Amino acid sequence: MPFVRIAPIFGSVMVVFAFTMSVPWLVAQSLDDGTTSLWAVSAVLSAAAGAFVWCFGRRRVGPEPDLQSRDGVLLVVLAWTVLPALAALPLWLFYRQHGGHLGWVGAYFETVSAMTTTGATVLTGLDALPASVNLWRALLQWLGGMGILVLAVAVLPMLGVGGQLFRAESTGPIKDMRLTPRIAGTAKGLWSVYAGLSLACVLAYRWGGMSWLDAWIHMFTTMSLGGMSSHDASFAYFASPRLEWIATLFMLLASGSFALYFAALVKRSPGRIWRDLEWRGTMSLMLGSVLLVAWLLWQRAVVPDPVEALRLAAFNVVSVASTTGYASTDYLQWPVFAPIWMLMLSGMATSAGSTGAGIKMIRLLILLKLAHRELARIVHPRVVNPVTLGGRALDASVVYSVLAFMLVYGGTVAVLTLVLLLTDLPFDTALSAVVACVNNLGPGLGEVGPAGNFAGLTEPQLAVCTLAMVMGRLEMLSLLVVLTPGYWRK
Amino acid sequence: MPFVRIAPIFGSVMVVFAFTMSVPWLVAQSLDDGTTSLWAVSAVLSAAAGAFVWCFGRRRVGPEPDLQSRDGVLLVVLAWTVLPALAALPLWLFYRQHGGHLGWVGAYFETVSAMTTTGATVLTGLDALPASVNLWRALLQWLGGMGILVLAVAVLPMLGVGGQLFRAESTGPIKDMRLTPRIAGTAKGLWSVYAGLSLACVLAYRWGGMSWLDAWIHMFTTMSLGGMSSHDASFAYFASPRLEWIATLFMLLASGSFALYFAALVKRSPGRIWRDLEWRGTMSLMLGSVLLVAWLLWQRAVVPDPVEALRLAAFNVVSVASTTGYASTDYLQWPVFAPIWMLMLSGMATSAGSTGAGIKMIRLLILLKLAHRELARIVHPRVVNPVTLGGRALDASVVYSVLAFMLVYGGTVAVLTLVLLLTDLPFDTALSAVVACVNNLGPGLGEVGPAGNFAGLTEPQLAVCTLAMVMGRLEMLSLLVVLTPGYWRK
Ligand SMILES: [K+]
Ligand SMILES: [K+]
Repeated sequence: MPFVRIAPIFGSVMVVFAFTMSVPWLVAQSLDDGTTSLWAVSAVLSAAAGAFVWCFGRRRVGPEPDLQSRDGVLLVVLAWTVLPALAALPLWLFYRQHGGHLGWVGAYFETVSAMTTTGATVLTGLDALPASVNLWRALLQWLGGMGILVLAVAVLPMLGVGGQLFRAESTGPIKDMRLTPRIAGTAKGLWSVYAGLSLACVLAYRWGGMSWLDAWIHMFTTMSLGGMSSHDASFAYFASPRLEWIATLFMLLASGSFALYFAALVKRSPGRIWRDLEWRGTMSLMLGSVLLVAWLLWQRAVVPDPVEALRLAAFNVVSVASTTGYASTDYLQWPVFAPIWMLMLSGMATSAGSTGAGIKMIRLLILLKLAHRELARIVHPRVVNPVTLGGRALDASVVYSVLAFMLVYGGTVAVLTLVLLLTDLPFDTALSAVVACVNNLGPGLGEVGPAGNFAGLTEPQLAVCTLAMVMGRLEMLSLLVVLTPGYWRK
Repeated sequence: MPFVRIAPIFGSVMVVFAFTMSVPWLVAQSLDDGTTSLWAVSAVLSAAAGAFVWCFGRRRVGPEPDLQSRDGVLLVVLAWTVLPALAALPLWLFYRQHGGHLGWVGAYFETVSAMTTTGATVLTGLDALPASVNLWRALLQWLGGMGILVLAVAVLPMLGVGGQLFRAESTGPIKDMRLTPRIAGTAKGLWSVYAGLSLACVLAYRWGGMSWLDAWIHMFTTMSLGGMSSHDASFAYFASPRLEWIATLFMLLASGSFALYFAALVKRSPGRIWRDLEWRGTMSLMLGSVLLVAWLLWQRAVVPDPVEALRLAAFNVVSVASTTGYASTDYLQWPVFAPIWMLMLSGMATSAGSTGAGIKMIRLLILLKLAHRELARIVHPRVVNPVTLGGRALDASVVYSVLAFMLVYGGTVAVLTLVLLLTDLPFDTALSAVVACVNNLGPGLGEVGPAGNFAGLTEPQLAVCTLAMVMGRLEMLSLLVVLTPGYWRK
């Protein structure tokens, strides 16, 4: 049974996760915001549950079972479904104590949204929440971001789902490779880059004028491209162009591949970043879109001042395209092209190996090459050119896996939208909610737009969105695989 | 030059097409509706243009040039872009004479819409139009339908675009195969089935209570899945359940493959139809959706009477799913799931070899098989099963071409929607207009829904929709190929 085999490692993950609750606990204690006992109870319960799972597994399979790639899939699915349940405990307890309206479904939605770095929220009155609660939501995003980095380079490649796109060494037969040392090795390098950039970000925010608390909270949700804020007004609260430009810069950086940054660091060659095809694609697409939207705002006289148009476009376009989802204005009031294009960008603009989600730039580049090749093939049927990327011919299986991903992506969006429509949600709200959740973006259109949130949705609707967020984060296939009967046989 | 090589054959097509204008000409004369001269002028001008092209080509390449598959592509593109321009001449003249508002772009939109069997209209006051004009629009749809049948089995297979999906004999090296005899051979069989069913349809409509004129007009637009009507109220004008059931039956029949019907006829084996996987897929999807929508209407008390709910659902769902686009009620007032699901069906429910458009059932079946295989492959990476359909393993190139089609289909819808959004059309109108045009369906959502039409769109917007209709009809790739520089080299 895969469940038993991964129990020791998943139990330890749960215990470690319980320890992260000490951060809001300490903050609650030092600020005396009245939530200290919540964190204590939640941390102890989570640690106890983790310890139980660990003991249970250890007794049956020993301390170091040989994990296979199949087990990795389950581990990942559990990480993004069980840990949010633990994380939701303090939230749920808080609202129970203070007579709020947050049920289990809402609390679970909120923490799944945080840990998948989606950033969609069902909470209102964020400014009035205790600092520890806002910090916890933000910390969950940052922790989710850490998990994603490992997910992308260490686990998904085994599924042939995207990872092999940017790491040639992870293709090939992987059935017998042991899981744990592999994860540990890659994780260390990526996390050091993540931590380094995070530190730079928190200092920049503090320099830009945020309080230390806000700086930490917004660093957590910037670096993870999560987009949650401690203010209902999001970045509009600060009304600070300087902070917006700092955020734009770090969102751009975090949209690139951390594996690429690490490689450039190890080889002491920053030029490596600039020469990377995907990085250039990500940056060109984002900056081109910023200019286009700024021009549109200025040309339609929505924002008469060109400099202000550029600033508004830069912050909001990069925010949505990078799947962060901060807003400094209600961009649904812009010409209709802008928000729809931004929503589409959120599925395409980030790099594989970043904390973004959706189709990702590398797949987009392969698809464009492929479309070009297909047309050439029809005109000259006898000439068969391989699809190349950066001068290197792509393996047919890679091209094929990209097409399969697109298929599953499109199918997932269509099916989940139809389910939401059955609950009578309007079409643009339903479609955009699913796209915003699958791309781990956050804000959609209409009711779930940048000026609204997900609080108005019913519990069944929230459940569908929760599923969409997890599916998007696990690149669809991981979750679907675990749901096939074949996975559980032998 | 491909242009020169196909000039003789395309010139003759133009002359033959000019002759079809004699039908409205005769009707105008016998009903004395005041449009006789229009038809005479248009027919003579068109025939003269055709004769000129024929002479021009014949002088350079002789009477029977050897046409290659590449020439077939251009022939098809010209047929669906130049013939509508000829067909638009009488319409444009009519509105010029009678002081209407129809410009060239609108008139061309209308005839492209007719000949691609889309059925979207920019005309209002259909009931007040001369019989000959309404007959001409309907006849264009029927002629377009004849063209599509040939297109699907004789031309597109050469591009590797869908045709080989259902005719194994048309795969393989085709570069040296001569085009004309091939088309003539397949055309005859398909057209006899088309004509036979058309005759049955016109008699059924007459029996159901239509005037002979209405029976002919609506037969033309039913059999071609075109959906134009001589009444602004479409089928609601007749207020006749009997006529609605007749239309439903013939729309269902016309959603199947005419090649299949012909094969069943030749082999005297009606069971062949029932055993055909695609036919069963088409019928199950349509009937399943009818039941689902009927249940929804009844359960939400939109239509309290279950029998009436079934009738309304049957007619409108089959109409939209089959890409016909008649309406007997404003189904946008139904629960939001219904119209969106119907719009999606229009891309999936018809068979290849029918007069429908979009992704088509055969591709949907292959995609479903593929998705299933992919999941199995991830769970058991070493077991590689081929994708089978009806017990037969599918060639990898077929699977690949289906995926490429989906890619181009999705890309086309996305890009054209974005262009429409730049003209400030609302999102649901823009997206649904493109989907309704690419699927050659007709009605979309919002302003272009079943209760509205395309009259409110600006000329640039109409131009985008016109492009969408032609791209959809030619399965995207044919048109894109002709636009690549490589096509014109050598
Ligand atoms: K986000
Ligand atoms: K139609």
